[in-house]
Amino acid sequence: MKERDIRAVILAGGRGTRFWPLGRAARPKQFLRIAGPEPMLAETVRRIRPLVPPRRLTLIADAAQTRQARKLLPRLPPSSFLVEPEARNTAPALMLATARVWLENPEAVVAVLPADHLIQDRARFLARLRAGAEAAAREDALVIFGIPPTHPATGFGYIRHNRRAGRKIAGASFFPVLGFKEKPELAQAEKYLAAGGYAWNSGMFLWRAGVFAEKIRRHAPELEPAWTAMIAALRSKSAAALKRAFRLAPALSIDYALMEKAEGVLVADGDFGWSDVGAWSTLLGLWPKDAAGNAVRGATVTLDARNCLVWNPGRLTALVGVRDLIVVEAGDALLVCDAALDQRVKDVVELLKRSPECKKYI
Amino acid sequence: MKERDIRAVILAGGRGTRFWPLGRAARPKQFLRIAGPEPMLAETVRRIRPLVPPRRLTLIADAAQTRQARKLLPRLPPSSFLVEPEARNTAPALMLATARVWLENPEAVVAVLPADHLIQDRARFLARLRAGAEAAAREDALVIFGIPPTHPATGFGYIRHNRRAGRKIAGASFFPVLGFKEKPELAQAEKYLAAGGYAWNSGMFLWRAGVFAEKIRRHAPELEPAWTAMIAALRSKSAAALKRAFRLAPALSIDYALMEKAEGVLVADGDFGWSDVGAWSTLLGLWPKDAAGNAVRGATVTLDARNCLVWNPGRLTALVGVRDLIVVEAGDALLVCDAALDQRVKDVVELLKRSPECKKYI
Repeated sequence: MKERDIRAVILAGGRGTRFWPLGRAARPKQFLRIAGPEPMLAETVRRIRPLVPPRRLTLIADAAQTRQARKLLPRLPPSSFLVEPEARNTAPALMLATARVWLENPEAVVAVLPADHLIQDRARFLARLRAGAEAAAREDALVIFGIPPTHPATGFGYIRHNRRAGRKIAGASFFPVLGFKEKPELAQAEKYLAAGGYAWNSGMFLWRAGVFAEKIRRHAPELEPAWTAMIAALRSKSAAALKRAFRLAPALSIDYALMEKAEGVLVADGDFGWSDVGAWSTLLGLWPKDAAGNAVRGATVTLDARNCLVWNPGRLTALVGVRDLIVVEAGDALLVCDAALDQRVKDVVELLKRSPECKKYI
Repeated sequence: MKERDIRAVILAGGRGTRFWPLGRAARPKQFLRIAGPEPMLAETVRRIRPLVPPRRLTLIADAAQTRQARKLLPRLPPSSFLVEPEARNTAPALMLATARVWLENPEAVVAVLPADHLIQDRARFLARLRAGAEAAAREDALVIFGIPPTHPATGFGYIRHNRRAGRKIAGASFFPVLGFKEKPELAQAEKYLAAGGYAWNSGMFLWRAGVFAEKIRRHAPELEPAWTAMIAALRSKSAAALKRAFRLAPALSIDYALMEKAEGVLVADGDFGWSDVGAWSTLLGLWPKDAAGNAVRGATVTLDARNCLVWNPGRLTALVGVRDLIVVEAGDALLVCDAALDQRVKDVVELLKRSPECKKYI
């Protein structure tokens, strides 16, 4: 198997509010050290390094996030940072990043990776990524990593795929996609889990740049004016033209704008210990715990406390007689939350937005 | 009724650990602004001002606490501050404070007041104090304020008294004491409550200085060498002699050393909205609450949170889906505690004492 030209496009522009008060508008999840000793973005870059050297890497984010990313990753060349002209969901950003690759080498495989996911088995991840690049190239396919569901999650989109029509490529299994499903209600999620043949949409994709262009032409022609204008703008090196081209693309997710419409989409097994680290309680399953199930960052004293997550580095936290709590101290703001209700943290942020005195805490 | 010469002796030396992490060894309860806008000690001084002017006031505490008290109360004359030569419980301190008064005027009435109690009805308190001084003077009695029990508390000593032999003095009722009871178990406390004729020992006392001397002579002669030596040391103005005299007194509470032994002890009705503010959850009954029963100091956002007490001034606290919690942020340390278990906060302090890295948080 010849070494593929694999380009990584890291979506570094997430604006998570689920990790408030540690995560803020100016310090989103990908810059937090919650899933390891490094910020998640730095870990994402480090993780793919054996497969993708810095010069083949693109980080795509808005101007402010790009400034932060450059500070965090000073060794990356300036060409690695691609600033979104404006926030318009993932389709315009991935079209632009892929257009840049297409101009250099239409045969190159683009690997799209969110900056704020956790992968526990790094070696297997790299093997699966390599196989996925091979599948994308050989089959002229759009490849999407599907995560084998472990519970009826309602926070992910699901991908229905044909498990009988699977094929092995470079040691990994790939299945034709039958359809994309929106985030389901619990009852529906339970049905998916029981039925089998459904995987969580990880938001990690692989495609050959030329195939991406071809799929647009054949299955999503409404994207074509933007695509053509992007190519022209990149050739002319005109920032103004690029901005105009970017705005021609619909402000949609790439799933909705292209993946759901295209034929020849394959799902790849994301069996490498994936987590989107979607909320504070996720970390209860990731951090080391004491004998009573408490996972803590910072000095802690506990008396009859169980299954609590504490983020309070540099200070002391004392827990007395409490259970299943999320406790997060972030300088000017403190969160104390029932672990089962941590999805409501984003509602706290919404409440803060509405109060003039509280906007500073967002 | 002629105006009595009433002297207030404020016991300002408490070392509460129940308000950790706000309360510290260097910042005990009487210096905290937990029961009102002022520190409890300042409020105690202000409360009795209509009855006792500053020159008739003595604050007794150790050297460090006296330094803090002088900073807090800069208008009090230096003579108001009496430094305990060493920590030896209340008997030696109250003997010394009373001896000072005795030398000036044996007819003066000493009112002993802890610095860290809350009184809700100030006018009634002053009326009861005035009546108590009258009773102490007229009856040559040691007077102790007894609090009508509202529940079977296990955190207080109880005073059994003869409710049939009560008498009115200056508009207030006084009853002969029949016996002092140690802090009871719950079952015993329930019996006291059902039986009637029991009051909580408030630790607030009144006695004429000359009567105090006489009671020592007749009922607690083992205190006499210390008392005589204190009088001599105060006359000679020798600090060394005073220290020796202080050490002659047993390191006992005044209840144990004198009150329980003396005859002619009267209990006065402490019906003025008293609280010893014994632990964090007490404040749930004292602070204003929102519609969901949360009592907070500091900006707070709540989503489905009930009956929580929050101390976090100057920062934002968000509570999501939690119930009956005590949340206290004190700069370098944070407490999250089940409100029903706040008595265990002192156990946290004990744990911290045992850890070399954690001693700084005490």
